[in-house]
Amino acid sequence: MAGKVIGLGLGPGAQDLMSVRSHRLLQGAKHVAYFRKKGRSGQARKIVDGLLADNVVEYPMEYPVTTEIPFSDPRYNDLLAEFYEECAAHILKLAQSEEVVVLCEGDPFFYGSFMHLHARLIDKAPIEVVPGITGMSACWTATGQPITWGDDVLTVLMSTLPEETLVQRAKESDALVFMKIGRNLPKLRSALTKAGKLDQAWLIERGSMTNQTIQKLSDFEGTAPYFSIVVIHGHGRRP
Amino acid sequence: MAGKVIGLGLGPGAQDLMSVRSHRLLQGAKHVAYFRKKGRSGQARKIVDGLLADNVVEYPMEYPVTTEIPFSDPRYNDLLAEFYEECAAHILKLAQSEEVVVLCEGDPFFYGSFMHLHARLIDKAPIEVVPGITGMSACWTATGQPITWGDDVLTVLMSTLPEETLVQRAKESDALVFMKIGRNLPKLRSALTKAGKLDQAWLIERGSMTNQTIQKLSDFEGTAPYFSIVVIHGHGRRP
Repeated sequence: MAGKVIGLGLGPGAQDLMSVRSHRLLQGAKHVAYFRKKGRSGQARKIVDGLLADNVVEYPMEYPVTTEIPFSDPRYNDLLAEFYEECAAHILKLAQSEEVVVLCEGDPFFYGSFMHLHARLIDKAPIEVVPGITGMSACWTATGQPITWGDDVLTVLMSTLPEETLVQRAKESDALVFMKIGRNLPKLRSALTKAGKLDQAWLIERGSMTNQTIQKLSDFEGTAPYFSIVVIHGHGRRP
Repeated sequence: MAGKVIGLGLGPGAQDLMSVRSHRLLQGAKHVAYFRKKGRSGQARKIVDGLLADNVVEYPMEYPVTTEIPFSDPRYNDLLAEFYEECAAHILKLAQSEEVVVLCEGDPFFYGSFMHLHARLIDKAPIEVVPGITGMSACWTATGQPITWGDDVLTVLMSTLPEETLVQRAKESDALVFMKIGRNLPKLRSALTKAGKLDQAWLIERGSMTNQTIQKLSDFEGTAPYFSIVVIHGHGRRP
């Protein structure tokens, strides 16, 4: 096999927060693949706007389903598994002779979709992964305060988890990052209230992007996007 | 005040893993400050080797103490507090008229020393922070496997914590990152054995650097540097 697959971390959204390595690889890329919701341009593709060569071949991978069916429905897993198989097969074919760059928001190995391709390709093609600045880093940076000090314990968890789990983790950790907010916001708000930490929580949308917003969760009304993030800062040892 | 302070994330160690923004700001920097151990060149300074302008003014900040006195000794905190005050005062003076770039390994707000300057300067000078790829991202990337999937809970904690804490957190989390290894390695090994997770643990030294090493913790003998990292991967939902 003469080609390979590159999982390319793009960072949190601002184009100049991608690494110098990702920037260089993108400019030389002949094939780029990226996930997007049907009918959308896709956030990963947006980040690289203006950076790709004129003759680049693009392979948009459109999710057959995002939030239309709940995770718990067996059809959800089946549809996605079939989708990832198709995408992996196409990329594998290209990688016989070409380098294929898969655009990844944030860091490729930190949640996200690239890993579902990675798991299907790891035994079949050479794979290189370029780490990226995570969305959560951009979000805590946006708050203007450090997320962790000294021996603080940081827990990262999804707001899709049961409320009891959210309450317990919130109580037991010094610093917290909650992802996948969206329709889970009322549950998260209730959990943080029960844990006595609502007034320490910040809601950040589109961290590092030009339309970034930062608000105290206790002041926030309305609905938050799925990819917004809630952070609670640690307050550990400070000489 | 005409100047400002920039906390500049440099990423995990490989020079081309810093962001395009950090790279640009470094090349234009007139004043750079960085922490280092006495008698060493300093890791942050090493990362930017060859990138600084010829006439840059460097301000190395040398820790009065690193591991010679235990954290628990009251002198430790006093010495460090005095040191950070001095550094902050010097930087504040420069920032009256100049832009001062403080070099930060990894991400400036994720553990690390910059935040001790930040806390002392936040009400006195404009501060800009540029996030960076964390050392832990480089380490899990080095293992060639995703750190977190689906609804995995990730806990990041310091190996300086009591063994019982390490055992409990190891049992309760899907994915784990242990930092500050060094002399805490025997305790961490014992904790992971008690939690039944020793054989899932990887020890990574100098993630992303040319002399990076990756080993199963169960196979590892000898001593590990303070800044090595142990990771345990999550195995969550995978369509």
